[in-house]
Amino acid sequence: MAKTLTYKDSGVDIEAGDAVAAGIGRLARSTFGPRVVKNEMGFAGLFRLDYDERLFKRNYRHPILLACTDTAGSKLKLALQIKKLDTIGIDLVAMSVNDLLVQGAEPLFFLDCLSVSKVDSKTILSLMEGICLGCQQAGAALLGGETAEMPDLYASGDLDVAGFAVGIVDRKRLISGKDVEPGDCLIGLASSGLHSNGYSLVRKIIAKGKRDLSRHIPTLGRTLGEELLEPTRIYVKTVRSVLGHYRVKRVVRAMAHITGGGLAGNLPRVLPKSCQAIIKKDSWPTPPIFDLLAKWGPVAEQEMYRVFNMGIGFVLVVRPTFAQSILRQFKRLKQGAYLIGRIRPGPNKVIIE
Amino acid sequence: MAKTLTYKDSGVDIEAGDAVAAGIGRLARSTFGPRVVKNEMGFAGLFRLDYDERLFKRNYRHPILLACTDTAGSKLKLALQIKKLDTIGIDLVAMSVNDLLVQGAEPLFFLDCLSVSKVDSKTILSLMEGICLGCQQAGAALLGGETAEMPDLYASGDLDVAGFAVGIVDRKRLISGKDVEPGDCLIGLASSGLHSNGYSLVRKIIAKGKRDLSRHIPTLGRTLGEELLEPTRIYVKTVRSVLGHYRVKRVVRAMAHITGGGLAGNLPRVLPKSCQAIIKKDSWPTPPIFDLLAKWGPVAEQEMYRVFNMGIGFVLVVRPTFAQSILRQFKRLKQGAYLIGRIRPGPNKVIIE
Repeated sequence: MAKTLTYKDSGVDIEAGDAVAAGIGRLARSTFGPRVVKNEMGFAGLFRLDYDERLFKRNYRHPILLACTDTAGSKLKLALQIKKLDTIGIDLVAMSVNDLLVQGAEPLFFLDCLSVSKVDSKTILSLMEGICLGCQQAGAALLGGETAEMPDLYASGDLDVAGFAVGIVDRKRLISGKDVEPGDCLIGLASSGLHSNGYSLVRKIIAKGKRDLSRHIPTLGRTLGEELLEPTRIYVKTVRSVLGHYRVKRVVRAMAHITGGGLAGNLPRVLPKSCQAIIKKDSWPTPPIFDLLAKWGPVAEQEMYRVFNMGIGFVLVVRPTFAQSILRQFKRLKQGAYLIGRIRPGPNKVIIE
Repeated sequence: MAKTLTYKDSGVDIEAGDAVAAGIGRLARSTFGPRVVKNEMGFAGLFRLDYDERLFKRNYRHPILLACTDTAGSKLKLALQIKKLDTIGIDLVAMSVNDLLVQGAEPLFFLDCLSVSKVDSKTILSLMEGICLGCQQAGAALLGGETAEMPDLYASGDLDVAGFAVGIVDRKRLISGKDVEPGDCLIGLASSGLHSNGYSLVRKIIAKGKRDLSRHIPTLGRTLGEELLEPTRIYVKTVRSVLGHYRVKRVVRAMAHITGGGLAGNLPRVLPKSCQAIIKKDSWPTPPIFDLLAKWGPVAEQEMYRVFNMGIGFVLVVRPTFAQSILRQFKRLKQGAYLIGRIRPGPNKVIIE
């Protein structure tokens, strides 16, 4: 009789998966606040809304849940190439929680869904460390996750990971952009670099020019690989601190997370049809990595602004009388912030001058 | 001067992605109930908890949110191979919502995160149709999703998709398994076939025996490919109907979704340490696909039970006096249900006799 087939023969090792799961569990607990409900069964993650408690009831009279999902995109492929996966999890969390933040939400929890060619505990735990760091920066609990071994779908050593975040906002405090008016000011928050968008183009530029990722580049003050893997900034704590400053007045009228499509692609989504944003591109310092990529490509300036954040990772549209005070608050929080433009009447779009 | 690089040159087409997004939006709206909040901005999906309303307040005094994530695993690879993606989305939803259901939750919403080698609208919309069907079967809104084009990570035509589900349960109705007692009955619900687990082994068996997926197999009454892609059953409506029948008494003491690891791997997770499950394997009809796979492998019987659901996709542990009534209710709902065993004192495990 032929040798009988077992599940391990097919390339899937259930025990190895269970061992990694235990390690992930330990990391995840570092993100737990008091609202995470202990659940040994593990079919689902449990999170108390606490709305029987007085404080929660006061803050959330008409709660709305918000949910987002995203990946780290081609930045992950670059991280796999450099074999440095310890911060890509921060990018993954950032992509979702910054999107929640756009509508004024408080992130509650996060889940990751990982597909790997083969369970390799070192790689997976390194990735999970970044995810947990990101969750801590966002004040979100890592409530659950899944690791699927897919030897047939991924090349050896490859993996992909999706992130998912849930937040909450009171109906009255939901920021929708509908109150934006001509004259409102645009405050741009400094990005930490490329964040997580445009990496297919970045990888193409690197490949075309045969750029060495391990080479130290003086204008960057570090290697190219280090610069390209700089984690996406998570704006939750700074922006929520500013929002918390104006609990009664509606000072912040719209916000945008600058991802794929750049300022021109993301800002119009949060503006009324009859409002346009005029952005002065000289009003903030463009980090040197953008100039390098434009030169290396070469990539035309207009295309650069259409693909990359160009140094601005998040935008707030605020009432003009409060702009200076908000800029000062961000300064105190050590978050670079610039008055980058204004809203004026006109068809919904962004004009970068 | 060299030709300047654009984002399209790097293999990513933002406009094509936007066109597909519009199609997905139309499909998703078919899953929306009144609690989905219209949100044109699209940074996040919005869902009202409604807890200022009287009915919600009565049902959910101490609400707990639950969240799950999963993929369709290697079944997706098989679907890609057969080029039939219209039901794999049902599997994706099933994997997460059946997990939520284990703890008695009502699914609220679902999100998908898709990675593709290239945006192909026909493939993506076909996949999304299945996801929307699954959401309808689960009573969950498809609140959001993301499609990432990753030409560097996926072979041409390949894709991967992660699903995320959020549900809610009142603290008092959370089913945790802690009340399970010796003497309790195990009610097994018929699966629709293989569901979404064990497909790495299935694909190995198919490849080893050079089985033709398009061949009609008399004992299956259809082709092998059709049988293998039969969507995972979503138990939400039938099980919640039975739970709703016992609003005061705690009749259903534990539940388990039978996924990777089979009955032996999943049932112990929901039982107290001092309880074991004795399962009589002759108490339900094993669908013919399992016999075929065991013969073809060959795969030893014990391994079959460790990898596959063997015909039981979901288990309820119930108080013995209510077992017959519950079986009748499932019969009325046209869901196959069998008394498959009992709980007895002993170290936490499953014994299949």
